[in-house]
Amino acid sequence: MNHVASEARAAADVRVPVAAVIDFTADAFSACGLPADDARAVAELMTEADLIGSDAHGVFRVPQYVGRLQARQINPTPNITIRRSAPGTGHVDGDNGMGHLVMAFAARKAVEIARETGVAWVGARRSNHAGAAGVYAAIPLAHDMIGIYAAAAGSNHMAPWGGAEPMLGTNPIAVAIPAGAEAPVVLDIATSVASFGKIRSHALAGEPMPEGWAIDPKSGAPITDARRVNEGLLLPIGGYKGSGLSLIVGLLAGPLNAATANCDVQPEAPGRESNTGQFIIALDVSRFMPIDAFKAEIDRQVRTMTASAPLPGTDGVRIPGQWRLRHKRDRQQNGVPLAKVLLRQLDELAKKLQLKPLTER
Amino acid sequence: MNHVASEARAAADVRVPVAAVIDFTADAFSACGLPADDARAVAELMTEADLIGSDAHGVFRVPQYVGRLQARQINPTPNITIRRSAPGTGHVDGDNGMGHLVMAFAARKAVEIARETGVAWVGARRSNHAGAAGVYAAIPLAHDMIGIYAAAAGSNHMAPWGGAEPMLGTNPIAVAIPAGAEAPVVLDIATSVASFGKIRSHALAGEPMPEGWAIDPKSGAPITDARRVNEGLLLPIGGYKGSGLSLIVGLLAGPLNAATANCDVQPEAPGRESNTGQFIIALDVSRFMPIDAFKAEIDRQVRTMTASAPLPGTDGVRIPGQWRLRHKRDRQQNGVPLAKVLLRQLDELAKKLQLKPLTER
Repeated sequence: MNHVASEARAAADVRVPVAAVIDFTADAFSACGLPADDARAVAELMTEADLIGSDAHGVFRVPQYVGRLQARQINPTPNITIRRSAPGTGHVDGDNGMGHLVMAFAARKAVEIARETGVAWVGARRSNHAGAAGVYAAIPLAHDMIGIYAAAAGSNHMAPWGGAEPMLGTNPIAVAIPAGAEAPVVLDIATSVASFGKIRSHALAGEPMPEGWAIDPKSGAPITDARRVNEGLLLPIGGYKGSGLSLIVGLLAGPLNAATANCDVQPEAPGRESNTGQFIIALDVSRFMPIDAFKAEIDRQVRTMTASAPLPGTDGVRIPGQWRLRHKRDRQQNGVPLAKVLLRQLDELAKKLQLKPLTER
Repeated sequence: MNHVASEARAAADVRVPVAAVIDFTADAFSACGLPADDARAVAELMTEADLIGSDAHGVFRVPQYVGRLQARQINPTPNITIRRSAPGTGHVDGDNGMGHLVMAFAARKAVEIARETGVAWVGARRSNHAGAAGVYAAIPLAHDMIGIYAAAAGSNHMAPWGGAEPMLGTNPIAVAIPAGAEAPVVLDIATSVASFGKIRSHALAGEPMPEGWAIDPKSGAPITDARRVNEGLLLPIGGYKGSGLSLIVGLLAGPLNAATANCDVQPEAPGRESNTGQFIIALDVSRFMPIDAFKAEIDRQVRTMTASAPLPGTDGVRIPGQWRLRHKRDRQQNGVPLAKVLLRQLDELAKKLQLKPLTER
């Protein structure tokens, strides 16, 4: 289990205060030319990923994003705009800005639109990698709305079903549903068995991958060395089902938005815009049912399931979103657990950018 | 592979003309009190499932639905209504009618609404089992729209992740995307590794299930005898991911619509209404991109992937929707392949209902 591994690792890691992670991340992006408000907004969205346990999408990604900004692959000062294409739809032009800014903008617009029309579908083109999908799906929650987010990945690690060429990303899907006293139900999944981010974390930690995560395209045999993942293909969830989900997400996030996806994805290169596509749906619960009655129903379902009998050999029922909240409470209080090898990388980055290192904050 | 097994079986089966299947099915439902137009509409939607290869949702289900109508579990003469709860949303009351009628109505309304607002979300309560999810997702295609459909199953065969009690259905998801000269991309998947319908087909055909489809909740050990499936739990795609998808679909199709889902599902009983919930989203492509340009892009992506290198040991790349179209063309011309054991069951049903048997049509 992802979370068990994450917990085990956390014990061996250094706990860094949340404010320090945000400040460091914001300073790093300011140093790359982002306006102070934007740098801070990106830092808060990335640190949210660290808080909820989406460790592969938090401060871990700072060096990668800094590299892209320095290589002029991402526009540090975008003019993000929306075309209201119909009463319920919007088409965002991200002006090649950081994906976090583009999709936070898109999510806020989706909430505004859904307030009027009950449901909103906002797609984005000319965006970039936005990090943890669940962070954006969860934005409508504060407005008593359901959020659905999906994204076309900027690199391909899966093949279409029956194929040997990497033409599909791990294209993630996230859904967030408001609850009352219980944790909101938040599902955030890659359409591959393991996300590429998770595999990179394994590689960084020197941990092997289990069989069933990746195969060698020449033979179909499993690959278990996380550092060799670039030679392999990631496997989709449920065979042709997950492959189909990835393809569909790619088509809805990509071509529908005039963005790039699936077989059209190009390798990164200095100065090359990714034209990443994502979309978000906001749905106003109150158009179907009074919000308090709905939240009470969600609480009741969650409690009934959580109290049900455990499968032998497991820790019992876990509802998506419960661990996010548990991680968040723990980390807000005790700091974000970061691997020592990651802290060393971030200290090197600080040196290059002439910033105060994270370990000294 | 589903389709390969289906092909192999087809060769041993009897081919029955499409018109005969529709007529027989319509007559069966007329005999149960459905008005002639409704009986025919249900028959056409069910036979569409037979045409596209969703064999577990076609005429195979007639005896089950007839049993429910005779046990007064389903209202043969419903007054299906919609409450337009917001400009982009609708809430359908199915009046406990056949799910096929309720969701075909909901899909048509979703298309009408999306024509105005760009996107529509139409949920239904007091519906019933509607058969093949892909049939409804595909309704918007004829209007150059994207369709997304999902349903809360009326019986539970999966446990929440980590649990041993059946509190989740195989809650299916279907998405349909228009293409140009290529087959529309249509994904129709249960959130379990295998649908309960597929397992019933295996049981009927006396075929074993592969490992990974079902487990014994007392031990976690695999079950491979399809006839023993009621003792076991079906496994979700991708472990906790598919379990989470099933839960989410259940919450969006069930509680949001004031319908029943997940842990609230009750066993069938004479006179007991299922209060099944489903929803459909229609999205008007033209609000994002000119439809012809979009279709050309989908064609191009499909062709690029279909032409890519095959994985050793497979028949090469298969895009969701290609087999549906191939099945449909074959079966429209050569008839629907039906197992002899199924034909015998249908002949017995014809006798009970005093109808001309399917084998004599």
